[in-house]
Amino acid sequence: MSKVHMVDVTHKPVVYREAIAEGAIRLRPETIRAIREGRIEKGDVLTTAAIAGILAAKKTWDLIPLCHPLPLTHVDVKCEVSGEDRVVCRAKVVTSAKTGVEMEALTAVSIALLTVWDMTKKLEKDEEGQYPYTRIEYIRVVSKKKGGEA
Amino acid sequence: MSKVHMVDVTHKPVVYREAIAEGAIRLRPETIRAIREGRIEKGDVLTTAAIAGILAAKKTWDLIPLCHPLPLTHVDVKCEVSGEDRVVCRAKVVTSAKTGVEMEALTAVSIALLTVWDMTKKLEKDEEGQYPYTRIEYIRVVSKKKGGEA
Amino acid sequence: MSKVHMVDVTHKPVVYREAIAEGAIRLRPETIRAIREGRIEKGDVLTTAAIAGILAAKKTWDLIPLCHPLPLTHVDVKCEVSGEDRVVCRAKVVTSAKTGVEMEALTAVSIALLTVWDMTKKLEKDEEGQYPYTRIEYIRVVSKKKGGEA
Amino acid sequence: MSKVHMVDVTHKPVVYREAIAEGAIRLRPETIRAIREGRIEKGDVLTTAAIAGILAAKKTWDLIPLCHPLPLTHVDVKCEVSGEDRVVCRAKVVTSAKTGVEMEALTAVSIALLTVWDMTKKLEKDEEGQYPYTRIEYIRVVSKKKGGEA
Amino acid sequence: MSKVHMVDVTHKPVVYREAIAEGAIRLRPETIRAIREGRIEKGDVLTTAAIAGILAAKKTWDLIPLCHPLPLTHVDVKCEVSGEDRVVCRAKVVTSAKTGVEMEALTAVSIALLTVWDMTKKLEKDEEGQYPYTRIEYIRVVSKKKGGEA
Amino acid sequence: MSKVHMVDVTHKPVVYREAIAEGAIRLRPETIRAIREGRIEKGDVLTTAAIAGILAAKKTWDLIPLCHPLPLTHVDVKCEVSGEDRVVCRAKVVTSAKTGVEMEALTAVSIALLTVWDMTKKLEKDEEGQYPYTRIEYIRVVSKKKGGEA
Repeated sequence: MSKVHMVDVTHKPVVYREAIAEGAIRLRPETIRAIREGRIEKGDVLTTAAIAGILAAKKTWDLIPLCHPLPLTHVDVKCEVSGEDRVVCRAKVVTSAKTGVEMEALTAVSIALLTVWDMTKKLEKDEEGQYPYTRIEYIRVVSKKKGGEA
Repeated sequence: MSKVHMVDVTHKPVVYREAIAEGAIRLRPETIRAIREGRIEKGDVLTTAAIAGILAAKKTWDLIPLCHPLPLTHVDVKCEVSGEDRVVCRAKVVTSAKTGVEMEALTAVSIALLTVWDMTKKLEKDEEGQYPYTRIEYIRVVSKKKGGEA
Repeated sequence: MSKVHMVDVTHKPVVYREAIAEGAIRLRPETIRAIREGRIEKGDVLTTAAIAGILAAKKTWDLIPLCHPLPLTHVDVKCEVSGEDRVVCRAKVVTSAKTGVEMEALTAVSIALLTVWDMTKKLEKDEEGQYPYTRIEYIRVVSKKKGGEA
Repeated sequence: MSKVHMVDVTHKPVVYREAIAEGAIRLRPETIRAIREGRIEKGDVLTTAAIAGILAAKKTWDLIPLCHPLPLTHVDVKCEVSGEDRVVCRAKVVTSAKTGVEMEALTAVSIALLTVWDMTKKLEKDEEGQYPYTRIEYIRVVSKKKGGEA
Repeated sequence: MSKVHMVDVTHKPVVYREAIAEGAIRLRPETIRAIREGRIEKGDVLTTAAIAGILAAKKTWDLIPLCHPLPLTHVDVKCEVSGEDRVVCRAKVVTSAKTGVEMEALTAVSIALLTVWDMTKKLEKDEEGQYPYTRIEYIRVVSKKKGGEA
Repeated sequence: MSKVHMVDVTHKPVVYREAIAEGAIRLRPETIRAIREGRIEKGDVLTTAAIAGILAAKKTWDLIPLCHPLPLTHVDVKCEVSGEDRVVCRAKVVTSAKTGVEMEALTAVSIALLTVWDMTKKLEKDEEGQYPYTRIEYIRVVSKKKGGEA
């Protein structure tokens, strides 16, 4: 017998749902300087990452097998340089629905961070093509809200 | 003028490409015990996560704006419990192509870890619906290989 | 003039909708024994098939041209061995929406059965690479329900 | 800091929304005659274009980064020959939602017109493989409606 | 430990691959007459089904978790009425690749048959909204070929 | 019988393929000034449009029913203000494949232009929510190349 069960949310109420997630990627200080100074060859790293994150939030139901499709009413992804060797991405996702949106916010952050990695690959690789420094450091849910008018 | 540039790989040779990426999610010890004992309500966490990771690797070009579509010839995702409060996911991606597959391996790991989170949400949330403990701890490239017969 | 018309459901009421569909695939008795004993090389056939079915239900609107996108609130797919040469997959799909979900249940069953085929290909092929025995035997709607609270 | 912002529609009312868009592609008169007489090798141009347009309307949220996913309740795409060297496609999209559907109607028209181009490529290309004549001439919103029962 | 393994085809040769699959759906004789006479409200059933089948073949890697993405070079789907109560769909898929395309042909047939069902739903349902007659009867691989120039 | 036929490119040679397409959208002069001065609320219009165009090029096979999936090796989309009331988008797509990429370039341009429309909607609508001025003016293939080393 197969062993996988999607939660049945049919009889849960439609209420306001909000989730904020955050994550960070550690990059070389030289890469961070290149981002700050707009010198990354592939282009505007932070805006591209934010767009990728927004699009990914809308695809969460297709990426995480047991997630429900939800009518997201707002997705905000902000990416910015933090200190001398980090980019932090933060996503806020809102909906009026029968279940929460933390997976959507986490997916947005994850894909935004991966996009930062992809845009800066050339500067991060060492002479053997390895990534001794680059690392997504953490991804977490900052807060969830539920209920109230929507 | 728009500011984004995809690398042109047209004239690069088709060679063997391999990348291994890895990441970890920290969960409550009770959740880890429930995984070990097959007591997670939503089902087989580790197999579901691995499947989600494999499917995600194949969608990398659709998630990361400047990635090229590549004819992946192998994707292996392994998820397992590590110690008393962690699940580690490791992805190996292989292709014969004009550019590398580290973004594919990183995407597989990221989505596998998010799937672990989604499958164990119920046990991870506190009484206010927050996640004080859960955290994706790191995601990194373990190794890349290039060249050789394929 | 083009000849294709999507039904307009704008003015239909949002009510409880449920559909159950079922299908079977005939496999060699040796393959069935291998599934029962967990000896299929590609892994856990029935769980992988169920996950593929759940994901497919959520993509029905993208696969069947005139289907409406619906906010599915529950998808349950069960796959199990039946007798000595069959796997049966059954899908239940639920929503609160303006139109029914039988196509979603049928799509889940179809893709689950195809996944069983894919996972067992190696054992089903004869020495010339043909499939003299394998066959999806039937796919049908078991029941539909409509109305009531949701 | 990233520079992209999705509008927050969470607190807008769910009302009836309708949009009609239209566009035209100019083709060689010989191609138009071939369409009229059912002599296009790739098959029924106008029906294929309409189907592609309907499917595309449902994917708008995945194509236009800041569009919201909406539960479309009706998509109607009509493609027809107009005069001696044009095909006109018109799309009507309807929903009950918190924001309008003009992008969905425009996307349906755009992809329907591109499908007409793809189906007639062979007749449109000159001996050097160029398209001196073919051109999507315009795409516009014919009308939008909002409010009223739904 | 997760239990799922994609086959590694990296070192297999790129050769000509072809697969033909076929399936049938049983419909009410009245429905079949309506198809023959072009009286189905939703439009051209057989062409819509064929288009859905072609598009689905190209998405097989996204539907069947362990399938490889393949550069399909030809997909042909034919749907036709057979006798007084059946529609038969047949798909031929061709590629030059490292692994076979039977799953692509089977997926094309499955989605084409489901599209026939969707287009004829209104005539197939009884007064209680059930489908006592409709049934996908079988889906099978007719033949596979491998090798030779490509 | 269904009436749709994908071209069989199996036996065509893999050669260098390039296509350049271009299109324009007419906007109000006030909107153009707002773009030039970075005052569009939704953010960086031209970069967002270029990213949407690049992503769309990679999805052409999923949008245009009879297009083949192709391993694109380069996609370049440039969007810029032209004169006092236009934005022009130009896409170059390159691959080594068995068939051409003009549909990919045209799709990239079309979705980039639609994204410009979506980003500037608020300034383009009149007080009744209509678009009396906005219009995608033309989309055409600038040039195609074929052959040569790749």
